[in-house]
Amino acid sequence: MGPHPAVAAIRLAVRRVLHDILTDHHSTSDAAPHERPPSPLVLVACSGGADSMALASALAFEAPKLGIRAGGVTVDHGLQPGSDLRADEVVLRLRELGLDPAEAAAVTVGREGGPEAAARDARYAALDGAADRHGAAAILLGHTRDDQAETVLLGLARGSGIRSLSGMAAVSGAGGRYRRPFLQLDRQTARKACMAQSLPVWDDPHNTDPAYTRSRLRHEGLPALEKALGKGVVEALARTAQLSRDDADALDAWAGQAEAAVRDNTGLLECAKLYALPPAVRRRILRRAAIEAGAPAGSLFARHIEEIDRLITGWRGQGVINLPGKVVAQRQGGRLVIRQG
Amino acid sequence: MGPHPAVAAIRLAVRRVLHDILTDHHSTSDAAPHERPPSPLVLVACSGGADSMALASALAFEAPKLGIRAGGVTVDHGLQPGSDLRADEVVLRLRELGLDPAEAAAVTVGREGGPEAAARDARYAALDGAADRHGAAAILLGHTRDDQAETVLLGLARGSGIRSLSGMAAVSGAGGRYRRPFLQLDRQTARKACMAQSLPVWDDPHNTDPAYTRSRLRHEGLPALEKALGKGVVEALARTAQLSRDDADALDAWAGQAEAAVRDNTGLLECAKLYALPPAVRRRILRRAAIEAGAPAGSLFARHIEEIDRLITGWRGQGVINLPGKVVAQRQGGRLVIRQG
Repeated sequence: MGPHPAVAAIRLAVRRVLHDILTDHHSTSDAAPHERPPSPLVLVACSGGADSMALASALAFEAPKLGIRAGGVTVDHGLQPGSDLRADEVVLRLRELGLDPAEAAAVTVGREGGPEAAARDARYAALDGAADRHGAAAILLGHTRDDQAETVLLGLARGSGIRSLSGMAAVSGAGGRYRRPFLQLDRQTARKACMAQSLPVWDDPHNTDPAYTRSRLRHEGLPALEKALGKGVVEALARTAQLSRDDADALDAWAGQAEAAVRDNTGLLECAKLYALPPAVRRRILRRAAIEAGAPAGSLFARHIEEIDRLITGWRGQGVINLPGKVVAQRQGGRLVIRQG
Repeated sequence: MGPHPAVAAIRLAVRRVLHDILTDHHSTSDAAPHERPPSPLVLVACSGGADSMALASALAFEAPKLGIRAGGVTVDHGLQPGSDLRADEVVLRLRELGLDPAEAAAVTVGREGGPEAAARDARYAALDGAADRHGAAAILLGHTRDDQAETVLLGLARGSGIRSLSGMAAVSGAGGRYRRPFLQLDRQTARKACMAQSLPVWDDPHNTDPAYTRSRLRHEGLPALEKALGKGVVEALARTAQLSRDDADALDAWAGQAEAAVRDNTGLLECAKLYALPPAVRRRILRRAAIEAGAPAGSLFARHIEEIDRLITGWRGQGVINLPGKVVAQRQGGRLVIRQG
């Protein structure tokens, strides 16, 4: 008798990603071709919740079969009393699964960008630190298709275009360090896999706290959307993420290539040449130019880019346009001048 | 004292569109340059609801000032008992606003594509017929920013990429016949404008019937999403529509140009050249090729295109791939053969 279908599903997802990691590891290893590269270490980031416990269990099962060492890290955000004890408990569970190293990393969560963003920044810094310390080849993250759907809706609420609809990447971070094996797997499967393996899971109270946007989305927004649009919404959102990511990548590449062709020999953007480009490409070039001049990407909104764009498409002698980061844009002699004022 | 702010807003929106229509009308008129082109006719499509009654009132007010003749059409879908009497009543109201011609067009709603799609098809056919009969330069539609937000969510639920996120165009139909002046105006403004002008409005029971997806979205899905994500969701969705539309247009243009370059001299698609393209562009070329071969666009899903794509990116001797419309795709000697089987 094989494993429970949910257990088989999580293991398959992890096995595929471990294969990719091995391929990348061998191709980038410094070892001479005739030497066998050292056995790589893969870490799992584990909160103790169902998704990441399922991930840890699948990593513990699959890694040895591929000659990979498996370890785990849990981040203590220090946001609730007793969070250090909880972290110790997660470490214990990771050890019980056979993960080594298994450790807790305590962080101090700042305030920048709101509570969720600050916690995320602190968490990734701690995971990067652990990976560097142990020389890990990769860190696995337990984000599921449901998390992806929520991320797409959060991006949609920003209304800033298809890049923000593209959700989380299956591979991200410096050198593709972060991997998300469960991005096409639903949350329910992870939970079932824990039950089938009698793994205790911890439900983070943050996940049900309506003070958090993502929590409200998960427990009210998405269910209402599913009720209105049908059960396929989560899958449709996840597919939208992938398609949007590919589209955004292609348009960024186009803008990158087109940019060189629309600059004059002093490096200024020529309005006539910009005018001839499709709006989607032109606006990307304008956005890049504004960021290059010093405008912070996060403060640069669609309306800013539209205002610069009107210097090209609706020229009627407008004055200087003020952008975030004290950057100014103006049209002079058929050229666009964008610089810190 | 000027008009109520809501009335001023709807009039401004209509005035802008009438200016565009005049510009297009003069530039495409057959009249010699020294002759004055005949006064164009603009029709409003009016259900008697708040959005289109507001639109009709603004058209009646603005058109004469620009030398435009204003008329109106209401479509009797024949889906409820007494719908013919309701249509007559709307015609009466259009006449009271000074619109001429003002008429009802009775249609028979089929079943194809579900009740909403069938009603829409019948409605546009009737509007096209009225425009042709009267030689109208344009037909104004009362879709608001809220309708646009709903359309984006409906597209999102299909999960078929950014084209389906691009909602309704401000200008659409043959020769840009249909115009949507209220696409950036919220529903509440249209309703207030009707109240301020003491215009009676009719609330279509379909709009609150939970049997209709759009109605469920309007009354349950979107409010829940706003509760989770904040009040700016409708605006963000409408902006997403515009950005997605521009992006989709640019990528379609790229795919159109790239297609010629990846065909060999017998017209077959070369796999090696396709492989070198960004996935977003390659998949659009594959989709175009499948449709050109006879696959119905509406039945061609992302998973079909992915399967064809794997003939290029994951070639391991796959056999023939069956697509909708009896179209088959296969790889032969480094070429892709897509044809009706």
